[in-house]
Amino acid sequence: MKFVSIVIGSKSDYAVMAECAETLKKFGVPYELIVSSAHRSPERTRTYIKEAEEKGAQVFIAAAGMAAHLAGTCAANTTKPVLGVPMEAGVLKGEDALLSTVMMLEGMPVGTLAIGKAGAVNAAYLAIQIMALQDDELRVKLQEDRISKAKKVELDSSEIETIL
Amino acid sequence: MKFVSIVIGSKSDYAVMAECAETLKKFGVPYELIVSSAHRSPERTRTYIKEAEEKGAQVFIAAAGMAAHLAGTCAANTTKPVLGVPMEAGVLKGEDALLSTVMMLEGMPVGTLAIGKAGAVNAAYLAIQIMALQDDELRVKLQEDRISKAKKVELDSSEIETIL
Amino acid sequence: MKFVSIVIGSKSDYAVMAECAETLKKFGVPYELIVSSAHRSPERTRTYIKEAEEKGAQVFIAAAGMAAHLAGTCAANTTKPVLGVPMEAGVLKGEDALLSTVMMLEGMPVGTLAIGKAGAVNAAYLAIQIMALQDDELRVKLQEDRISKAKKVELDSSEIETIL
Amino acid sequence: MKFVSIVIGSKSDYAVMAECAETLKKFGVPYELIVSSAHRSPERTRTYIKEAEEKGAQVFIAAAGMAAHLAGTCAANTTKPVLGVPMEAGVLKGEDALLSTVMMLEGMPVGTLAIGKAGAVNAAYLAIQIMALQDDELRVKLQEDRISKAKKVELDSSEIETIL
Amino acid sequence: MKFVSIVIGSKSDYAVMAECAETLKKFGVPYELIVSSAHRSPERTRTYIKEAEEKGAQVFIAAAGMAAHLAGTCAANTTKPVLGVPMEAGVLKGEDALLSTVMMLEGMPVGTLAIGKAGAVNAAYLAIQIMALQDDELRVKLQEDRISKAKKVELDSSEIETIL
Amino acid sequence: MKFVSIVIGSKSDYAVMAECAETLKKFGVPYELIVSSAHRSPERTRTYIKEAEEKGAQVFIAAAGMAAHLAGTCAANTTKPVLGVPMEAGVLKGEDALLSTVMMLEGMPVGTLAIGKAGAVNAAYLAIQIMALQDDELRVKLQEDRISKAKKVELDSSEIETIL
Amino acid sequence: MKFVSIVIGSKSDYAVMAECAETLKKFGVPYELIVSSAHRSPERTRTYIKEAEEKGAQVFIAAAGMAAHLAGTCAANTTKPVLGVPMEAGVLKGEDALLSTVMMLEGMPVGTLAIGKAGAVNAAYLAIQIMALQDDELRVKLQEDRISKAKKVELDSSEIETIL
Amino acid sequence: MKFVSIVIGSKSDYAVMAECAETLKKFGVPYELIVSSAHRSPERTRTYIKEAEEKGAQVFIAAAGMAAHLAGTCAANTTKPVLGVPMEAGVLKGEDALLSTVMMLEGMPVGTLAIGKAGAVNAAYLAIQIMALQDDELRVKLQEDRISKAKKVELDSSEIETIL
Repeated sequence: MKFVSIVIGSKSDYAVMAECAETLKKFGVPYELIVSSAHRSPERTRTYIKEAEEKGAQVFIAAAGMAAHLAGTCAANTTKPVLGVPMEAGVLKGEDALLSTVMMLEGMPVGTLAIGKAGAVNAAYLAIQIMALQDDELRVKLQEDRISKAKKVELDSSEIETIL
Repeated sequence: MKFVSIVIGSKSDYAVMAECAETLKKFGVPYELIVSSAHRSPERTRTYIKEAEEKGAQVFIAAAGMAAHLAGTCAANTTKPVLGVPMEAGVLKGEDALLSTVMMLEGMPVGTLAIGKAGAVNAAYLAIQIMALQDDELRVKLQEDRISKAKKVELDSSEIETIL
Repeated sequence: MKFVSIVIGSKSDYAVMAECAETLKKFGVPYELIVSSAHRSPERTRTYIKEAEEKGAQVFIAAAGMAAHLAGTCAANTTKPVLGVPMEAGVLKGEDALLSTVMMLEGMPVGTLAIGKAGAVNAAYLAIQIMALQDDELRVKLQEDRISKAKKVELDSSEIETIL
Repeated sequence: MKFVSIVIGSKSDYAVMAECAETLKKFGVPYELIVSSAHRSPERTRTYIKEAEEKGAQVFIAAAGMAAHLAGTCAANTTKPVLGVPMEAGVLKGEDALLSTVMMLEGMPVGTLAIGKAGAVNAAYLAIQIMALQDDELRVKLQEDRISKAKKVELDSSEIETIL
Repeated sequence: MKFVSIVIGSKSDYAVMAECAETLKKFGVPYELIVSSAHRSPERTRTYIKEAEEKGAQVFIAAAGMAAHLAGTCAANTTKPVLGVPMEAGVLKGEDALLSTVMMLEGMPVGTLAIGKAGAVNAAYLAIQIMALQDDELRVKLQEDRISKAKKVELDSSEIETIL
Repeated sequence: MKFVSIVIGSKSDYAVMAECAETLKKFGVPYELIVSSAHRSPERTRTYIKEAEEKGAQVFIAAAGMAAHLAGTCAANTTKPVLGVPMEAGVLKGEDALLSTVMMLEGMPVGTLAIGKAGAVNAAYLAIQIMALQDDELRVKLQEDRISKAKKVELDSSEIETIL
Repeated sequence: MKFVSIVIGSKSDYAVMAECAETLKKFGVPYELIVSSAHRSPERTRTYIKEAEEKGAQVFIAAAGMAAHLAGTCAANTTKPVLGVPMEAGVLKGEDALLSTVMMLEGMPVGTLAIGKAGAVNAAYLAIQIMALQDDELRVKLQEDRISKAKKVELDSSEIETIL
Repeated sequence: MKFVSIVIGSKSDYAVMAECAETLKKFGVPYELIVSSAHRSPERTRTYIKEAEEKGAQVFIAAAGMAAHLAGTCAANTTKPVLGVPMEAGVLKGEDALLSTVMMLEGMPVGTLAIGKAGAVNAAYLAIQIMALQDDELRVKLQEDRISKAKKVELDSSEIETIL
């Protein structure tokens, strides 16, 4: 079974990353979600990634805050695409997590999304776009989503717009 | 034909992005590369993305510097995965391009890589990882690349290491 | 009819940008205000800009947050002056939007104002200053506004000042 | 006579701001250029702005580095549009000048362009766009410039592009 | 009469700068405090500085936020020492005001203190230290203040310390 | 007696640094905790460090905010290991304290931990790891702590995880 | 004898701080200059400050880079005015030194100047302005310097200016 | 045998980290130095850390650039003290590496040193200080080093100082 695997570094990141899971659910894309830490449970993280890959994980989404090493650790343990979501945790509000996630050395990519909730949702979208390369139904859903987003803008506008 | 499309915002970004193309070539992944700007040639950019998508582009890689809108413009015009490479152009050395590329609003993902050359190479790697989901031969090449990278580390170490 | 066109990237920016509209109203400058997104409704954005320009838009004011591409998109689709207001949206509180708006490449200017409410009001003032180049009545109003601002400072001071 | 006034804070900024003057010249827009400092010659700055305004200055372009107060000083002494170009001077390479120029309080706008050479050229473009509101010939030149810029992108691309 | 002159850019800065005035009062140093803006009341600012200097102002303390030009404007209009306090106003919380205040060009010094309340109090302290060079009584008070500050640390410690 | 010495720059840092003390207590490591400031009580700071070193202090933990010189002052007065915790005090939320603590010149190390509470706890952990080099019981406790942390991750995960 | 005391943290800062000394010399203000480090020679630093104060030092100028604690150390050991010059040393080019110097806690002011050479010269100017409060001859020299600076601007301008 | 273990993420970091090894050698502290990457050779890294710990490693020093995960990976695989040196690699000159190294979550400390060469030398010093807790000879050497550093300051000063 082909699915998306979401690994979050701490249960406290769940509130935000639930939006990632919700987005996948809305598009009917199967996913797993576990808590595992690059530092507190490094073995569990490695083992999980290997097993998930064998079970059919197509894309990994890793979310962590501060010195966010989780996405990099995923990337080091799989050749599947890894997407990183910098969490807004701690004093620096995710600026540390953004740099810790995106500035990977050559040969070890992490496709990084925006800090926080926007990134959580967009990691799901990017994973869906990747899955859709092999799934025409999904591709159609993405196109419909675009159209509905554009319509939503028009609707929003109509509530406040001033046209001469 | 399935291929990767590389769009660069300015000919001056070519020196760096040639490394992206080289990496794709090394793995035998077909690609297109054009110069098109979100601002100076917005219509050309849109038209190209639509046509490339129809011709079989699976992943778009967009590279731009400063107020780097190119990846976002690609993302707005396709539902294929879009990867962004912030260029080190201008006074702020890519910090502006990083934020302009990665901080996308919900529903419009750009999978962002590191600033500059590392990002150029990694955009290719991530694109290859995405292509490899449908291509077992490519998957094997990625795994071999990992092994050779690990070996290279050992070799590098052997030249300078001190072991008691 | 000559007017100012305000394009805001998201309905959530309205609370702040209403101050921009209020300022134009206070000076009697006609304006349009619509919601349109560079990413979620790119076509609507382009179409609107072309039509507004034909209808008489003299200045465009674009307000967006995060990877704020809206002002740049306006600039790419008109040769009228475009003013950009970076919104305080998201985790980075507008630092991303400031750089995404101001760091435009040569030949594609966006006259950028301060992040948030001060910028919203100042975009209106700068637009009025531009309109006033062709409108003596408006020019006089701007000069009166200056005088009343200077008087307000004196009044404010009188409430708290300590003079030996 | 209607013209653009360029005020630069230090002779050392001339190398960069000459590009601003060149751009105005290319479009046939008359301009003045003087050196005057907000701090070292405050009176000269004020006097010049008043006189230039009386002589027909339509737009002021102020360029300064570090704690760049020149554009703000211009803005405080005229109600004509003031555009600010943060110079790349000093240790912080213009980050200080950008914030000192753009973060103006309500009612005192400075339309700010990118740091350094891109901003120098774009200040000219924005001034030309403002002048073009009253000058159809200039408007046509701006549109032709856009077309030639788009063609230049195609030409640049043709030298390096790879199409399947 | 020798005194310290406090100029604040906006009445909204008063809450913080009142601490500056309080500190001067505690040490028995006479002061004036007025609101005047570098941009909204440039003439008033200049006139006041000249008059205050003639009346006996020994040190100027200028407090402003955002693109904080007030201290620089004072420095340009007097050769008395000018101290700058960056206010925590606006979205960037004083990082803009710090750079706009401290990064002055050669020959135009502003002795800059910390952002916000600590800087407000310390501007008073530094002004008192400067006044104390001509006033032995004041010098003694400063030394007593140091001793009492050191004692306060001991007292604070005694409430929570753990000694083996 | 071998112990850890915690020096905090201000009583207001106690709330956070109590977590540091708690962690040491949990592992049964003796500690002292005092308030002393690099600036307000420089002599007390020096005297305390010398005396603590003589009494058996093995590691110093210094916590301070803003221009955080306390850890550096400790380092200058002892050759025992000094660990620094940047406090989240003031407007810049610890970014200033981080740089003031970590960027020490050659020959004067401060082992710096994260800003705020995470750093407070980790300074204790690092001190315990250093003490454990001479204390096998402590070493075992650290290993048990690791195991319990990994188990906690599993437990946390079990409450929210989704496995296919 | 009344003089200015310059303390520099490292001989490598001399090249820049020589400009500070030169400026004092130009105005005929006596000065001392020594190398002493807050960390490598803390006792020497304290002893020197006490002795210099007794000998007649009116103002201390402290220059250091990175985690620049020298100005703060001076401030902790004297109640004379202390001016700080952040050096451009190290990887962060003085941003660390700026924050380490300026963000002092309440009651311990350091009047901070710009990073690097501009700050070195301006520390001298500010010290001279402080000395001039007791020295009419010096006050006159400062006023003449201003006039000559304003004339220099005019001269600079005349070489490049374009007037319609 | 008790020793210090230096792990560097890339052979290109060797030039800088050789200074770390040199410092250990100068103090007669045995060390190992290997190249191993958190991402390119994760297994080698883990295996080495375990083996080094068994062989007697007392302190680990990890040096890496960009999204520097190496120190964190070490910390996750040992309970010995881990010191981190952010390398000046890549476009962001070590600001990314600093945050990726220092901002570790609770319970997983990395004692972080300055970016680049100063940090490389200081990691050695801090490791020596830790080793010296069990080694009186080393303690004496550290004290002598301090004295010689203070003398060097005096010597440096004597070459350039100006004393009245």
